[in-house]
Amino acid sequence: MTKTILTCAVTGNITRPDQTPYLPITPAQIADDCIAAYRQGAAIVHIHVRDPETGAPSMAVGHYRETVERIRDVTSDLILNLTTGPGQRFLPSVEDPSVAAEGTNLLPPAERVPHVLALQPEVCTLDLNTMASGNQVIINIPRTVEEMARLVRDVGVKPELELFSSGDLVMARDLMQQLDFSDPLMVSFVMGIKYGWPPTVEALQLALSLLPEGAIWTAFGVGRHSFPMVAQSVLLGGHIRVGLEDNLYLSKGELAEGNGPLCEKAVRIVRDLGGEIASPQEARALLGLGS
Amino acid sequence: MTKTILTCAVTGNITRPDQTPYLPITPAQIADDCIAAYRQGAAIVHIHVRDPETGAPSMAVGHYRETVERIRDVTSDLILNLTTGPGQRFLPSVEDPSVAAEGTNLLPPAERVPHVLALQPEVCTLDLNTMASGNQVIINIPRTVEEMARLVRDVGVKPELELFSSGDLVMARDLMQQLDFSDPLMVSFVMGIKYGWPPTVEALQLALSLLPEGAIWTAFGVGRHSFPMVAQSVLLGGHIRVGLEDNLYLSKGELAEGNGPLCEKAVRIVRDLGGEIASPQEARALLGLGS
Amino acid sequence: MTKTILTCAVTGNITRPDQTPYLPITPAQIADDCIAAYRQGAAIVHIHVRDPETGAPSMAVGHYRETVERIRDVTSDLILNLTTGPGQRFLPSVEDPSVAAEGTNLLPPAERVPHVLALQPEVCTLDLNTMASGNQVIINIPRTVEEMARLVRDVGVKPELELFSSGDLVMARDLMQQLDFSDPLMVSFVMGIKYGWPPTVEALQLALSLLPEGAIWTAFGVGRHSFPMVAQSVLLGGHIRVGLEDNLYLSKGELAEGNGPLCEKAVRIVRDLGGEIASPQEARALLGLGS
Amino acid sequence: MTKTILTCAVTGNITRPDQTPYLPITPAQIADDCIAAYRQGAAIVHIHVRDPETGAPSMAVGHYRETVERIRDVTSDLILNLTTGPGQRFLPSVEDPSVAAEGTNLLPPAERVPHVLALQPEVCTLDLNTMASGNQVIINIPRTVEEMARLVRDVGVKPELELFSSGDLVMARDLMQQLDFSDPLMVSFVMGIKYGWPPTVEALQLALSLLPEGAIWTAFGVGRHSFPMVAQSVLLGGHIRVGLEDNLYLSKGELAEGNGPLCEKAVRIVRDLGGEIASPQEARALLGLGS
Repeated sequence: MTKTILTCAVTGNITRPDQTPYLPITPAQIADDCIAAYRQGAAIVHIHVRDPETGAPSMAVGHYRETVERIRDVTSDLILNLTTGPGQRFLPSVEDPSVAAEGTNLLPPAERVPHVLALQPEVCTLDLNTMASGNQVIINIPRTVEEMARLVRDVGVKPELELFSSGDLVMARDLMQQLDFSDPLMVSFVMGIKYGWPPTVEALQLALSLLPEGAIWTAFGVGRHSFPMVAQSVLLGGHIRVGLEDNLYLSKGELAEGNGPLCEKAVRIVRDLGGEIASPQEARALLGLGS
Repeated sequence: MTKTILTCAVTGNITRPDQTPYLPITPAQIADDCIAAYRQGAAIVHIHVRDPETGAPSMAVGHYRETVERIRDVTSDLILNLTTGPGQRFLPSVEDPSVAAEGTNLLPPAERVPHVLALQPEVCTLDLNTMASGNQVIINIPRTVEEMARLVRDVGVKPELELFSSGDLVMARDLMQQLDFSDPLMVSFVMGIKYGWPPTVEALQLALSLLPEGAIWTAFGVGRHSFPMVAQSVLLGGHIRVGLEDNLYLSKGELAEGNGPLCEKAVRIVRDLGGEIASPQEARALLGLGS
Repeated sequence: MTKTILTCAVTGNITRPDQTPYLPITPAQIADDCIAAYRQGAAIVHIHVRDPETGAPSMAVGHYRETVERIRDVTSDLILNLTTGPGQRFLPSVEDPSVAAEGTNLLPPAERVPHVLALQPEVCTLDLNTMASGNQVIINIPRTVEEMARLVRDVGVKPELELFSSGDLVMARDLMQQLDFSDPLMVSFVMGIKYGWPPTVEALQLALSLLPEGAIWTAFGVGRHSFPMVAQSVLLGGHIRVGLEDNLYLSKGELAEGNGPLCEKAVRIVRDLGGEIASPQEARALLGLGS
Repeated sequence: MTKTILTCAVTGNITRPDQTPYLPITPAQIADDCIAAYRQGAAIVHIHVRDPETGAPSMAVGHYRETVERIRDVTSDLILNLTTGPGQRFLPSVEDPSVAAEGTNLLPPAERVPHVLALQPEVCTLDLNTMASGNQVIINIPRTVEEMARLVRDVGVKPELELFSSGDLVMARDLMQQLDFSDPLMVSFVMGIKYGWPPTVEALQLALSLLPEGAIWTAFGVGRHSFPMVAQSVLLGGHIRVGLEDNLYLSKGELAEGNGPLCEKAVRIVRDLGGEIASPQEARALLGLGS
């Protein structure tokens, strides 16, 4: 049985500081939580940054740099995975839906990856979804994704493709053919977000039926689906992800006191199912990272 | 075994006149093909109209009215289903993706249904998809769909919800709860369009796992998947749709000489599998139409 | 979410004393392990008895009586479930396969249930499988199962139907119609025994596709599949079973020191997935036991 | 898309002459129907013989020889596939189920294959099922099947493994490893027989999830499931089988006037789904037959 790679998504950009006092916000806090996750078994940390004053999502390269350096001061073992999520929202105006309303943050591809180009982590995510998000629209059309993929590939960063529907997987297959990604393909199935994949076996089976052979996949759930999806992913041969980006609770009504406890529980589930956790070095071998 | 309802989608708005000489374009041609489909067993015809001069898609109420009247001159038995598709495309500009490029045709909900309100067919479609279509974006956010549904419901038109991903089915369930749709829910699964559901059993199983009990469903495929999906839908208990909107060929390399032959072949497949074709009256009973 | 019923199968008749020193053999040991399972959260114990001298499987009513009385001396809360398994093996002779070879123990139905009729536990199992077991044949033809079901029903014992293939589920449906079982139907899917259901999601989905609505089901695995099937069953809405009848190990290479630790681990998995364990009284309500 | 191999099972041993006047019984009739099937597109005929006087199933080598020679007088193109089914029934006595009752016909392996050894067709079937058949028991334990497989392999006959449950597929995989079968493995999934696989997509998916890579598979249904399973098998990439052994009716209430019309209809379904029928030579290439 392949060992299981645990990714910890430590803060994201949706969770708000008023939802939990344990959300890491400053570069120092984020770095500390990454290390805590690492000590519990995470091989990869998925990083967003925030404005240290307000806790609001940020794309500032400086915050990314400080976070990365603080982690690297402690260990170079842990695999770093930076987000490229911000810049994909379109809000149609009510009167004329072709005009962008306030809140729209659509950016051209090159403006979504400067922190990745500057800091060159081993991995960055690419979102492949175009879908409704309430009455907003998430837009990641093929032209955009392909250019982002090209930019990060050219500095040697491996993309992790975030997939929310079977259509995203079709786009992933196209990308893999158009670009010369280093093998294997690395994808995540994001399950339980409204209008995305439901957190069910049937959704996972559809995803797996479309997956290119040899791809490394992680299925993870949000909210109360987080730990059930850890088990379901392991049972079907996938890797796992937990973290405060996805879920605030250790169990019903019990806030997780940081990302460490979430990772600790995920590791326990994997082991209870007979699995083993991959070290960062083992994860690098599985993912074809480094040399 | 429930009888099978055959819908014929006679012209659509994607197929171009230069692709096949058999595409009906004028109201008279469209009406004739509807009658031809009816004579072969179609209980429902799904109608778009076109500019009689150019063959380009049109939303002109006059063309819809002429088409409907021409059909009604021949028979009132056949169930009419008008599209509300046009008005959902957004093309992000390359330099600033938040600005609509030429080709964008996004419309507010009220401007997408005047022909339905004027002509009050028994059924109209509502597209529930927000997705990439090449580098264009199809946008049907919940607010838009809900208002369109409310408008058509208020004049007694039953919506057929067109679904392209599992997320669309989640929106369909919400709609069913928010509005007082007459039972049963009527949905179509559109399979084989790029970035939509793939034309596979796994996709259909995911769709069915999310479908509200009692819903009447049709699964149909586009292009070369059209006739295979006729069989697959019947085998799993669904209804069927064919027509020049979805597919131009009777068999590989052989253009269908109109919608009649496509319906004839679909009916043969249903019967070869032991099924029976529902008459329009039987379809009305299944769909809760009329009074 | 329905609470999860944990059954502990404490000794079975396949496991041999030389495989683990923790196997309960005497009525006193078996009763003690039932109580240990109960203290860890088991609502039901599934009981076989053994010859106290040799550890070999036994059908002696006296051993069953002593075991039941020893449990009842401690608590009447725990639900007792006695096996009716022995008496179903046929070994074809090599030269003339129609002649039973030594080791054959096929019994007429009435001779397989005297302990159940005498002791009237709340539940007894009925095996519905006819299948190869190596070069032996397990035989439970409909005539036999129906008579056993009738006999135990007439003394008020609820049968739990043990199913090893989709065919067994067909027989279960027939039985339910022929006899006047008290609702709901109670079934177990035995997964991972050679020539029976494989311990996979696809097998479970086939089983569930055939299950009568409202049935209470448990899916459990043998050997190293035991704990993964605990998780898979809970994730799909089923109940669970563990115990030394099914599996000797707490984790790879680590023998379980009795049934208590196996139950403790199963309970931890259920809770880690967000589930709750049903008490015996809650299990009785779900199963329609008692009055 | 791979071409579809059509097998016609012309008479079997379950169908009775009083059920249809079109059942071929004498070697001449069976040979004629094989040729009729071939002319409609069958690449393989699956042959049982019967007592020409009574129509009862027969194992007489002479009848097989006459049938084969009559076919070979017309064509050597058609692939011949002889059954080895008879000799697998055990009827437990009511009073003592370990004693065989009248009707039992269990035979040692060597006595089930003399016609195959004598006539050396390109293919013969091997049944891998042990299961209830009403209150009778079909017995094909691994020891028996392995010896039959060895005997036919040693005279250069390729076995087609007939599978009725997921357990049979496990036995098939073992066989493939123990013996030096010529690639590819050739299997049939028999669907719709009571206590065997139900004629459903879920059953087929379980079967396919267990199938060794590269295996050539046919899924076929009995009775009214015959033609639906033709379509379902083709839709999932499998080959097909029809014939009076499996089903007497061309459509509901309409007896098929021989095997030719059943094949004609199967071929029409394949073509309507966009498939093509394999000639016997194309089938040989797919199956690795000949040299």
